[in-house]
Amino acid sequence: MVGVAFVQMEPELLDPETNYCKAERLTREAVEKGASLVVLPELFDTGYVFNDAGELEAVAQPIPSGRTTEFLEWLAEDTGSFIVAGTAERADGGFYNSAVVVGPEGYVGKYRKTHLFNREKLFFKPGDTGFRVFDLGFARVGVMICFDWFFPESARTLALMGADVIAHPANLVMPYAPRAMPVRALENRVYTVTADRVGEERGVVFTGMSQIAAPTSEVLVQAGRTGETVGVAEVDVSLSRNKKLNERNDVFMDRRREFYLL
Amino acid sequence: MVGVAFVQMEPELLDPETNYCKAERLTREAVEKGASLVVLPELFDTGYVFNDAGELEAVAQPIPSGRTTEFLEWLAEDTGSFIVAGTAERADGGFYNSAVVVGPEGYVGKYRKTHLFNREKLFFKPGDTGFRVFDLGFARVGVMICFDWFFPESARTLALMGADVIAHPANLVMPYAPRAMPVRALENRVYTVTADRVGEERGVVFTGMSQIAAPTSEVLVQAGRTGETVGVAEVDVSLSRNKKLNERNDVFMDRRREFYLL
Repeated sequence: MVGVAFVQMEPELLDPETNYCKAERLTREAVEKGASLVVLPELFDTGYVFNDAGELEAVAQPIPSGRTTEFLEWLAEDTGSFIVAGTAERADGGFYNSAVVVGPEGYVGKYRKTHLFNREKLFFKPGDTGFRVFDLGFARVGVMICFDWFFPESARTLALMGADVIAHPANLVMPYAPRAMPVRALENRVYTVTADRVGEERGVVFTGMSQIAAPTSEVLVQAGRTGETVGVAEVDVSLSRNKKLNERNDVFMDRRREFYLL
Repeated sequence: MVGVAFVQMEPELLDPETNYCKAERLTREAVEKGASLVVLPELFDTGYVFNDAGELEAVAQPIPSGRTTEFLEWLAEDTGSFIVAGTAERADGGFYNSAVVVGPEGYVGKYRKTHLFNREKLFFKPGDTGFRVFDLGFARVGVMICFDWFFPESARTLALMGADVIAHPANLVMPYAPRAMPVRALENRVYTVTADRVGEERGVVFTGMSQIAAPTSEVLVQAGRTGETVGVAEVDVSLSRNKKLNERNDVFMDRRREFYLL
């Protein structure tokens, strides 16, 4: 059994230094409560509602050489934990809505959001990494970001790649994900950790309700609609690696790919 | 706008004639309440908990030449409606857990359940038809049966084939589908009509809670855990054919198949 956590926080728009402080405080709290893996929200460092590309350009950082990854590497080393955090990535030719994975030994990898939501398309390039699963030793952790949840193929792909846990940084504005994520967990027999943000930014209200769901669809811990908080739950990888639903049904072996349209 | 309905009923095990009577009464009620399409439960004619293949053999009928299809054709013609009904199919070389589609003009087609649940594997052959969508004029109706819901590929495939409405005959024993089907409706922007059975058969309890969900994930009508009843709702195919979630997101156009594992 290993502890995993979401950090639900309210980033300050265009103020990474303040957000590093918030993330540090809440990550330490999660680790003190037993988490070996801590998931921070989407764009935890920059906020979400950019007015124009110039605002994004002023705060986006390269990965792994930029300031945000350096901060996360330091925090992971200092706390002895793994962290998955959503961040604005500056890259050659544009920006990505990305997630960084770091651990006590440093940088692990990154993921660039596959499915961009609404105005994100104005500022970010669609992710080109594809879905990624990182073997952290105690668990294989797949990453998807916010609106990726809407497409069942996202969680399915991560699960087929071997994910035990889906780390899901989010900045949710639609009301559906808290009801849908337990279904994603169930249909793939994985754990899901949705780290959502709270608060309002330039008139956009975020929904909070960060949650951890089990392969049984049970919601193990859930935050409220408002308030900065952490949620911690225990993950049993023997459960996520057992795809048997009953004596005769294995939800992966029972798939009949010959009849599925991609 | 067109009316669609579920029939929630309690079949009598191994007693098709009694079940035809029940189905007739409830189908007439649904049509009187405005339904042009009526969905009956899985195995509405035979019941579910067979002790052995001999019991199944005694009641299973060929499709379309058997007694159950004849009854459904008569009922559809007499009521001027379309009916999707789950039934035990006798075929060369074995039995299928199937659904029949009939309309005022007669037989339309059939579907054989793709994903068999638990003990069904002892009696039925896995479906070999693949998923099917039938254009009934007022709507394109896709069919899946009970446990097919668990696999997101089932509803996804039907939606990609053009289904406006997913007719979902069921004999649910797990508690999840009433929470999952609105997610299936939402992620595919289709209507779903789950016609579940109620009652207990040889110690197996069925969950009822038949429901119709909209492309918005809204549950338009839902039955209780017990009781034979019908539920009717209006379907707007202009909604199911519009896959735009907002100004910039179309949930089909936004799919990034190059990153999905099948």
